Amino acid sequence: MTNHEFYMDLALKNAQAMKGQTDPNPLVGSVIVNDNLVVGIGAHLKAGEPHAEIHALRMAGEKAKGGTIYVTLEPCSHYGRTGPCAVAIVEAGIKKVVIATLDPNPVVSGNGVKILKDAGIEVIIGVRQEESQKMNEVFNKFIVEKKPFITLKSGITLDGKIATHSSDSKWITSEEARKDVHQLRNENMAILVGVNTVIKDNPELTSRIPNGRNPIRVILDSTLKIPLGSKVLTDKLAETWIFTTEHHDKERRKKIEDLGITVFQTNGLRFVDPQGVVQLLGEKLVSSLLIEGGGSINASFLENKLIDKVILYLAPKLIGGQLAPTFLEGTGIDKMRDAVELSGTSFIKIGKDFKFIGYPIYTNEGS
Amino acid sequence: MTNHEFYMDLALKNAQAMKGQTDPNPLVGSVIVNDNLVVGIGAHLKAGEPHAEIHALRMAGEKAKGGTIYVTLEPCSHYGRTGPCAVAIVEAGIKKVVIATLDPNPVVSGNGVKILKDAGIEVIIGVRQEESQKMNEVFNKFIVEKKPFITLKSGITLDGKIATHSSDSKWITSEEARKDVHQLRNENMAILVGVNTVIKDNPELTSRIPNGRNPIRVILDSTLKIPLGSKVLTDKLAETWIFTTEHHDKERRKKIEDLGITVFQTNGLRFVDPQGVVQLLGEKLVSSLLIEGGGSINASFLENKLIDKVILYLAPKLIGGQLAPTFLEGTGIDKMRDAVELSGTSFIKIGKDFKFIGYPIYTNEGS
Repeated sequence: MTNHEFYMDLALKNAQAMKGQTDPNPLVGSVIVNDNLVVGIGAHLKAGEPHAEIHALRMAGEKAKGGTIYVTLEPCSHYGRTGPCAVAIVEAGIKKVVIATLDPNPVVSGNGVKILKDAGIEVIIGVRQEESQKMNEVFNKFIVEKKPFITLKSGITLDGKIATHSSDSKWITSEEARKDVHQLRNENMAILVGVNTVIKDNPELTSRIPNGRNPIRVILDSTLKIPLGSKVLTDKLAETWIFTTEHHDKERRKKIEDLGITVFQTNGLRFVDPQGVVQLLGEKLVSSLLIEGGGSINASFLENKLIDKVILYLAPKLIGGQLAPTFLEGTGIDKMRDAVELSGTSFIKIGKDFKFIGYPIYTNEGS
Repeated sequence: MTNHEFYMDLALKNAQAMKGQTDPNPLVGSVIVNDNLVVGIGAHLKAGEPHAEIHALRMAGEKAKGGTIYVTLEPCSHYGRTGPCAVAIVEAGIKKVVIATLDPNPVVSGNGVKILKDAGIEVIIGVRQEESQKMNEVFNKFIVEKKPFITLKSGITLDGKIATHSSDSKWITSEEARKDVHQLRNENMAILVGVNTVIKDNPELTSRIPNGRNPIRVILDSTLKIPLGSKVLTDKLAETWIFTTEHHDKERRKKIEDLGITVFQTNGLRFVDPQGVVQLLGEKLVSSLLIEGGGSINASFLENKLIDKVILYLAPKLIGGQLAPTFLEGTGIDKMRDAVELSGTSFIKIGKDFKFIGYPIYTNEGS
């Protein structure tokens, strides 16, 4: 590990520690080093408060002069509450700037670096780039596409099933894995399931962790057959948004809306159109969406290339059954060469189970 | 890590290095330590040659006196080619014996320890017991039950499929994983598939590694519908044994036998009875069996509680499809509480894929 990586790791650690408190801003950390001593550390704590570099520069004071600043995201070039960070860095007399990754927003990307270089400062870009980008994967997508970053989550047995042939699914995974799911719900702005899950399980879809935030509950229901006594309609624990098609029962819609529930009508004939749902969620500033659908919902989002990240909890159990459902149903692909591959894969153990993370790579063929 | 674990690990490493060359004997390693110095190391190299302890005692010579011997398996008590190892240890003046695991054979288990204790030697049992037992898992089962140790192997996508809905399966896993499978075939005395796999893929079922041993090819074929031109019948690369039921075509049996193929008739009405197959393989001294069946064959062996170990190669790919086959079909269990759990689970990365290993735990309920 080089010195650059060592100090950038410290900046990343400080940035990550603020997870969940900077929205809608990204996580950013910064470290200032002079003469082999750390003279300043900083992180962005909260939207509306100073950026990471400003905190670090304030801590360093005069010792910033001639030093090197590490920052996990390109210093900004815009005049906000604290002025452009790039200008502050120049004014502090910093000699070298090491950046993990450029600003993901194409409108401003590179502008901060230009200010620094124009002032004669040496700039190094790309140290721990992947880590920095992953840390802000939600922000990075939303700022560019104005659509939510979508995570598909499922708890499955080793033979790929999400329930037995007779639909029993309690429980596939261990308590530790289910706790981790509640953390996931806490981190996502919205959670999506199909109406059949509501009918079958009557779930709360909340984040049962201390001080947890409950995501907006998004239900896809093409005809509005959701039972009026469902917890998501009546428990008031979180907002519930129902997406339906034009083939819904108008009277029933009124009854649902009378419960304080928002109903959106999207395109889609027999089924709610996933593209339309995602577009609308983006317009409503929902930057992250967790899908916990059954096999059909999951498959329709994957076929539409809408899944950004896949998280699977694999329970070391076998249940078998030709008719037992898997987490990806639909028609599926025809040829193995058209399989959706996942990159950036990892497995970690959680309790008795294994947590898999991967990122689908979509090719241009096939849709 | 204690000193005991440190030296036992060395004994285990030496034992494991002889993998594949000690059959039908188990892998055994030994280390002798005196006054904090290693004075002898040994391993069982080949059936008919000295046991591990004898090699280590010979190397130590006079320095064995007053020392501690580490051995991965209980020293033997029987008079074979080199006399009982327990007696040799006593005669060498060893003061302390550290054993990983007792002899798995109930007829002799504990006899070696008794000889040592009767001679006033301190005996410690159980250091690295699990590792030692796993190293000889095939031997340990066969010596007790006279039935093969059975490994179920499958290459699957992350959504649990072994092929697309249109039966395309080339390829699920990467080349690295497929090489690992050839190593598995090399380590097993027999490999088992159903006739439908032969009809669909016409596989060789051989171990394509340098100096590899090909397993006996066991085909389950209830009516003898196997095509007479199949590679497993004609290529002479390895023995092929076909198991059928009484409902087979007698003339066809003759044609198959004329090709030099052995045909066994077992019980079982519509399907070949897995229990009967395993019993007969044991009688034929087949100590290890690798099952690479389709979902039905795999399920029938699991339902009969015959699978000792599960090895899955998980490809980070998604293919979807309600009708795409999984590696465990059949009817499957009805309630999650009846799921077969796996213990001793691990995941390692092989190329782009992940290799899972686990050991089914069968309860007495449900069968």
